[in-house]
Formats: sequence, C-alpha cells, structure tokens
Amino acid sequence: MRKPALIVIDVQNGIDEASHWGGNRNNPEAEENIGLLLKAWKKNDLPVIIVQHCSVSPASPFRPGYTGNELKDFVKPYAVGKIFQKSATSAFIGTDLHKTLQDIGIDELVITGFVTNNSVEATARMAGDLGYKNIVVSDATAAFDKIAIDGTHYSSQQVHTLSLSHLKDEYASIRTTDEVLASLIIPI
Amino acid sequence: MRKPALIVIDVQNGIDEASHWGGNRNNPEAEENIGLLLKAWKKNDLPVIIVQHCSVSPASPFRPGYTGNELKDFVKPYAVGKIFQKSATSAFIGTDLHKTLQDIGIDELVITGFVTNNSVEATARMAGDLGYKNIVVSDATAAFDKIAIDGTHYSSQQVHTLSLSHLKDEYASIRTTDEVLASLIIPI
Repeated sequence: MRKPALIVIDVQNGIDEASHWGGNRNNPEAEENIGLLLKAWKKNDLPVIIVQHCSVSPASPFRPGYTGNELKDFVKPYAVGKIFQKSATSAFIGTDLHKTLQDIGIDELVITGFVTNNSVEATARMAGDLGYKNIVVSDATAAFDKIAIDGTHYSSQQVHTLSLSHLKDEYASIRTTDEVLASLIIPI
Repeated sequence: MRKPALIVIDVQNGIDEASHWGGNRNNPEAEENIGLLLKAWKKNDLPVIIVQHCSVSPASPFRPGYTGNELKDFVKPYAVGKIFQKSATSAFIGTDLHKTLQDIGIDELVITGFVTNNSVEATARMAGDLGYKNIVVSDATAAFDKIAIDGTHYSSQQVHTLSLSHLKDEYASIRTTDEVLASLIIPI
C-alpha cells in the first residue's frame, strides 16, 4: 500500500442499540480492531477519515442531539480534524469526501465501521465506482440479523458474509485486521 | 405516482451468458415484465431512461464491440434518445443521469434490469442517497447464484431477495410489475 486512508464509518454509540438494527450483531471485536487500525495509522502518519452519521430520521439512534449520535470514546482522540458528517448511507453523498481525498492525492482506501451491508457497503460500492482501490476489513465491520421480504431469517453472519462477497466481486479486496496491520511499514 | 421515470439497467444480450454471472438466474420473466413496463410508460407518455453497461473488463460479456454489449432486441425500439452508457455499476457514476433527471423535474424512479444485487442495487442505493423516491420492481430484475467468501452457496433467489430486503429498508419501495402497472393512469 502507498498512502491509504483509513475510513472509519459510523462508529457511534447508537450502534449499541442492537435491537434497532436487527439484533444479534456479529464481530463483537470490530471496535477493538478499529482501535488497532487507528493506532497503527497514526504511528505510520497515514490519513484517517472519520465519518459520522447524522440521521434525519427521528427514530434513528444516530439522530443529532441524541447520545447515540456521538462518536464512540475510543474514536474521539482521532477526530481532531474535519469530521465527515452525512445523512445518506454513502459517505460520498452530501459531503466533499471525494474532493478531499483527491486534493490530498489518496487513491487507496481501507474501509471499516458499521453496518457492513448498509453504510459500509454503500460507501465501498461508490468508492469502487469512483475508481478507488479499496480494502474492506472483514473483522472491523459488523452486521445484524435480517428478516428478508419473504420472511426468511438471515443471521448477522450470513448478511455480513454475503455483503462482503458482493463487495469482493466488484468493488474491494477483503482483508482481516491482522493482514492490513502486517502490510504497514511501522508495526503497531 | 406523478411523473416517474422508468430506469432500464443493463438489459443487454450478455446477461444471457449466465455462467459468467454465477448461473441459475431467477425471474426468467423479467424481460417480459420490463417489456410490459416500457409499453405502458410510452402509452402514458412518461420518461424512459435506458442504461447500458460498457465494461472495461475484457472478460465481461458487456464489453463494447462484443455482441453481449448490445441492448436486447425488445429494448431497442425504446432507445430512441440518449442512452446512458456507464462503466461503473451505479448509473449515476460517470454519466449525467442525475443532472438530466433534475433538468426534466424527475424525483421518482421505477428501477428495473440486471443484476439485482449489482448494478440495480448500486443504482437504487445511490438514487436513494441522492433523494429520489424509488420503486424497485421485484419481478423485473434478476440475480444469479453466488458462492460467498466462506464457501456457502446462496441461490439466485436468496441473493435477489436479500438484496431487495436491504433496498427496502433504506432506499426504495419494492413492488411487482402488476402493482406498478395498476398505478398508471392509462392501462396497458
């Protein structure tokens, strides 16, 4: 990797309201892994992009003014510059993220955060379509159970895995936190 | 519905090379339903948007110069104005589709075509994020089988249904062709 930006999507308190999102979240270690990646990115003097969802839905745990909208404590020390606030699912819609990345010469993204099949997938799909070379970190994202429109119950792990499979086929490489850390010049 | 545009995505000969896409396509009636919708849209003097994938991948059945790149015959009579050619999965990337729709005052989209979890989902996600009110027509799209990254085999129907379920929760209403046709002023 040359100068990859670490993208940290929607790592906010509201993600802990699991029942709102479908319950039974997979990857409980995602926050710990995102913390390791943040630490490693700073140590390697690589760019970090913090994305915060500010939902326009009054029922969303990510609505502004509610405690769920706040970034998780472990992310806050890294939110020192601009935070990219969005109300769409893709971090590229309604923000100047694309222009910012272009201005600082970034064409490689390492994407983490929540929820795999929602804002992470929307952002990764659009990043791929825009021409970025992307890695989605499989154990630094997470999903929730889903009842499909035909009534079938899909587990969070199934939803997560199928989402990553779609991303792998068109938009991104899929790597673990350990694999990404091992690719950095300065070890954590 | 007020003045919804019918979006017909990647209805090209190459979609019939099923093994390239994963095999075992569901919804064999999708083309017939798209044909009914096209006929009804013209009868109601509503806008039709034809999207054509021009892949940059030399292995893609949608590569320019190859017969698979051609629109299916039943679509050709409707491709009288501008065709929106894309090489990304979302029809909004690398095209002026968003500007065109805004210029003619369209804020409602009825989305059809191929493949449900790929270009249809990418376009519908981005349409939702851009603020359009969307319908995805469940039996006027189709998917293929998928081997996930953990080796699990998902059937085309599972892939299709889970994709529509994700779209329903964030980006679009899901309707059948019959339901959409019934909402038009002039019957087919």
